[in-house]
Amino acid sequence: MTEQKIVRPTPVSGFPEWLPEVRMVEQHWLDPIRAGFESYGFCSIETPSVESLDVLTSKGETSQEVYALRRLQEDPRDGSDARLGLHFDLTVPFARYVAQHFNELVFPFKRYQIQRVWRGERPQEGRFREFTQCDIDVINVDRVPLHFDAEIPRVIHGVMSELDLPAWTLNVNNRKVLEGFYRGIGAEDPLEVIRAVDKLDKIGAEGVRDLLATKVGLSGRQADACMELAGLRGTGPSIVEDIAGLGVRSDLLSQGLDELAFVMDSLGDLPAGSVVANLSIARGLDYYTGSVYEGKFTEWPDFGAICSGGRYENLAGAFIRRSLPGVGMSIGVTRIFSKLLAEGLLPTGPSCPTDVLMVLPEDRARAAGAAQCAARLRGRGLNVELYHQPDKVAKQVRYAARKGIAYVWFPPLSDDRGHEVKNLATGEQTVADPETWRIG
Amino acid sequence: MTEQKIVRPTPVSGFPEWLPEVRMVEQHWLDPIRAGFESYGFCSIETPSVESLDVLTSKGETSQEVYALRRLQEDPRDGSDARLGLHFDLTVPFARYVAQHFNELVFPFKRYQIQRVWRGERPQEGRFREFTQCDIDVINVDRVPLHFDAEIPRVIHGVMSELDLPAWTLNVNNRKVLEGFYRGIGAEDPLEVIRAVDKLDKIGAEGVRDLLATKVGLSGRQADACMELAGLRGTGPSIVEDIAGLGVRSDLLSQGLDELAFVMDSLGDLPAGSVVANLSIARGLDYYTGSVYEGKFTEWPDFGAICSGGRYENLAGAFIRRSLPGVGMSIGVTRIFSKLLAEGLLPTGPSCPTDVLMVLPEDRARAAGAAQCAARLRGRGLNVELYHQPDKVAKQVRYAARKGIAYVWFPPLSDDRGHEVKNLATGEQTVADPETWRIG
Repeated sequence: MTEQKIVRPTPVSGFPEWLPEVRMVEQHWLDPIRAGFESYGFCSIETPSVESLDVLTSKGETSQEVYALRRLQEDPRDGSDARLGLHFDLTVPFARYVAQHFNELVFPFKRYQIQRVWRGERPQEGRFREFTQCDIDVINVDRVPLHFDAEIPRVIHGVMSELDLPAWTLNVNNRKVLEGFYRGIGAEDPLEVIRAVDKLDKIGAEGVRDLLATKVGLSGRQADACMELAGLRGTGPSIVEDIAGLGVRSDLLSQGLDELAFVMDSLGDLPAGSVVANLSIARGLDYYTGSVYEGKFTEWPDFGAICSGGRYENLAGAFIRRSLPGVGMSIGVTRIFSKLLAEGLLPTGPSCPTDVLMVLPEDRARAAGAAQCAARLRGRGLNVELYHQPDKVAKQVRYAARKGIAYVWFPPLSDDRGHEVKNLATGEQTVADPETWRIG
Repeated sequence: MTEQKIVRPTPVSGFPEWLPEVRMVEQHWLDPIRAGFESYGFCSIETPSVESLDVLTSKGETSQEVYALRRLQEDPRDGSDARLGLHFDLTVPFARYVAQHFNELVFPFKRYQIQRVWRGERPQEGRFREFTQCDIDVINVDRVPLHFDAEIPRVIHGVMSELDLPAWTLNVNNRKVLEGFYRGIGAEDPLEVIRAVDKLDKIGAEGVRDLLATKVGLSGRQADACMELAGLRGTGPSIVEDIAGLGVRSDLLSQGLDELAFVMDSLGDLPAGSVVANLSIARGLDYYTGSVYEGKFTEWPDFGAICSGGRYENLAGAFIRRSLPGVGMSIGVTRIFSKLLAEGLLPTGPSCPTDVLMVLPEDRARAAGAAQCAARLRGRGLNVELYHQPDKVAKQVRYAARKGIAYVWFPPLSDDRGHEVKNLATGEQTVADPETWRIG
C-alpha cells in the first residue's frame, strides 16, 4: 500500500445519505408507493436529471434555485453544456416531456414519476439540496373529468397509509370556492385576498385581518367574512352547507362548491377524519385553479406539507400551444423520511436483505452441497447468502447475527445429520427440507 | 389561455429518455437485476449524486469528464457549491461511503448500487452523458476470500440471464497470470506488456506484435510467447494446462493459475460456453490485480463491454488508511438497453401497467359498484384502472385497446347481468367473480 494523500470524507450538507439498514427502510417505503401508483394504472416515466436552462427557467421564477452544469475542463468546441441544469422539480420536466412526445401519448395521460430533484438552497430541517419526489398527475387535452379530483387524493391517501406514518390529515379545498366567495363579497382582487389568507400559518389570524384591511383594502365586514370562511372545517360534503350558510353567492362559488362536495363525497369511505375540507388552504399563488390538497402531520403543524397538489389549467403552455389541464399531487418522501428518522420513529431492522445465511462446511463436497442448497432456496424466492469461507460454525453464526439475518441454515455437516435451520431470534433449531421450508 | 413565448422542447444529446412503453421494459430489466442482487444477500446503498470535487478528482485521471455544479444565481455568502460535482461512476462514491461509515458497516461488506451517473463526454453510440449503472462489490478489511471471485460473476451471469439478451459471453482472465507470465519470460515491465496486449481489439495482432518489439523492447521470441498466451481460450479449468503448456514459470503465474482454475471450476455448472477463460482480456491499466471479467455480445464484438469488473487491491486508499481489497462488477444497463432498442430487439408492450380496465357505468349507483369492484381487485394484487367518465362502452373499450390493457371488466350493467371480463387479445368475454378471477 503506497502512502498517498488522504481526502477526508465528510458529508456534504443538504445531500442526505443512509446506512444500509436505513436504506432498506427507504426501499420498503418506495416499493409500496410505486405499487400503489401502478395499482391505479399510472405509468412510470423518468426524465433526464438534466434539462436545458431555457426549459428550466421557462416560468422565470425559480432560477435562483437551479444548479447549472459546467464541465470541469470545458471543451471550447462544445459550449452547449453551459446551457444545462439539474431539474428542481418533476413538473417542469413532465410538461416538457408531454409537449415533446405529445403525438405518441394516449390521453388522459396518467403518469407517476419517482426521481431525485436538486435545489441550490440553504439546507435546513426538511429542506434538502437533493431529495426524492414522488409525483402523480393526470393530464388531458382541453378537459379533465372531475373524477380525477377525487382519484388523485385517494391514490395518495392509499399509498401513504401503507407507510405507517404518525397521524396526518389530508386537507382539501377548492380555489373556485375561495375566489368565488371573495368575488361574492365584492373584493376587487380575489387573488390578493388569497395571498393574504395563505399567510395564516405564518402571521396568524390577526395578522391576516390587518393585511386584508390595509393592503387589500377590504371593509371590516368583508374581512370578517373572509376570516369566517378560512375558519371553516368539515369532514364530509356537508361543509358545503356551512359555506353556503355564510350567505355569499356567485356563480364561481357555486361551481366550486359542487366540485368540493363531489370530492368530499367521493372520499367519504376513507377512515373518519383522514380527509378534512379546510377552507384556509390555498397552495401557492397562481398555478392552481380548482381542487387543492395539502397533507400535514397532526403532531407537527409547523413542519409544512408532507404531500400537496391540486388542479391546474394548463400544464405545458410554455412548450406547446395546446390546452393541457390536469390534476396532480406530490409526496415529499425524503422530507417525511428524514423527519421520522430524526424523531426516532423509523424502526430500522437488518442491514442486508438476506433471509437465510447458508453455513459453508469445511469439507469440499459438503461445501458444494451447501452451494447447491443455497441455489435451490434462491430458486424458491428466498434471499440466501452463502458464507464465504469455512470458518468455525460459531463464527459464521455471529456474522449472521451482526447483519441481522434471521435464519442460519446448516446443510448436513456429517453423514448422520440432515438439513437444519436455526431461528436466531428464538434460538430454536429444527430439521428442514430445502424443497418446502418457509420463513416464519 | 394567454399567449406566451413557446420554448420548443428538443431532446438534449446524450441524455436518453423513454416513452412509457419503453420505460416499462426498462423497469422489467431493473427489477430482476435488483432481485437477483438481493437473492445473494447484497444490500442496497445509494449515495448522493453530488460529491465534493476533492473526492471526485482524488485519483486525478478523470477530471475532464466531471460535470461541476454552479448555482445559476450564486450567493456570495455560500461559495461551497462551487466545489461540488456529479459522480461519474459508482466506485468513487462507494469508496468514500465505506471510508466515511467504516465503523458502522459489517465486513465483508456486500453492496449493490443502481444509480445514474454523469459524464461530460461527447455522446456517441453506446456512450451517454447520463446513464444508469448497476454495480455489485464485496470488500473486506485486509483480505477478500477467493470465494467471491466466483460468486460475483455468478451473480452477474444470473441476473443478465434473466434479461433475455442476444448471445453473449462472460470472459474471465487473471492479471496475476498475465503479469506472472510476462515476468516469467523475462519482460522487464510486465505492465507495459499488458498495456500493449490490451490494444488487441483496436490495432490487431500485428499491431500489438509491433508494439511489443518496438515500444516494450521484447525479443521476437518473447513477443511470440505473449501472442501465444493472448490467443488462448478455454471453457473450463483445463485452460490452466494449456497455459502451463507454454512452458513459462513464475510464482505469480502459479498463483494466478490457481485462482483462474478455481473460478473456472466454480462456474462449471453454468450453461456450456457462457463463461470463457480469455487470455487477451486485461481490463484497463493499474486498478485490477487478480481476476478480471468482461462480458461481450457475440454478434457485436466492437460494441464494447456490456459488463465488466475484477479484483482490486485497495478500494478506498484515497480516503482512509486501511487496506480494503474487493471484487466487483458493473452492468452497463443503459448501454445494453439502448443498443437493443436501436436494433429493434426490445419487444415493447403496453404503455401502462394496468391489468384491467374497469368500465364506468352511467348509472350512479352502478358506478359506485364499479369503483368498489376495482378496489376489491386492487386488494387482490391487480392493477385496475377505473374509467374516468361514463362514455359509451365501446369508447371505453377503445381506450383500453389503445393503451394495451389486456382485459376490460364489465360490472353489472343491468339487473339481469353479472360481472363479465373481456380478453381484448382473443375477444373472448366470460362471466367473472371479483373474488376469484385471475389473469390468464
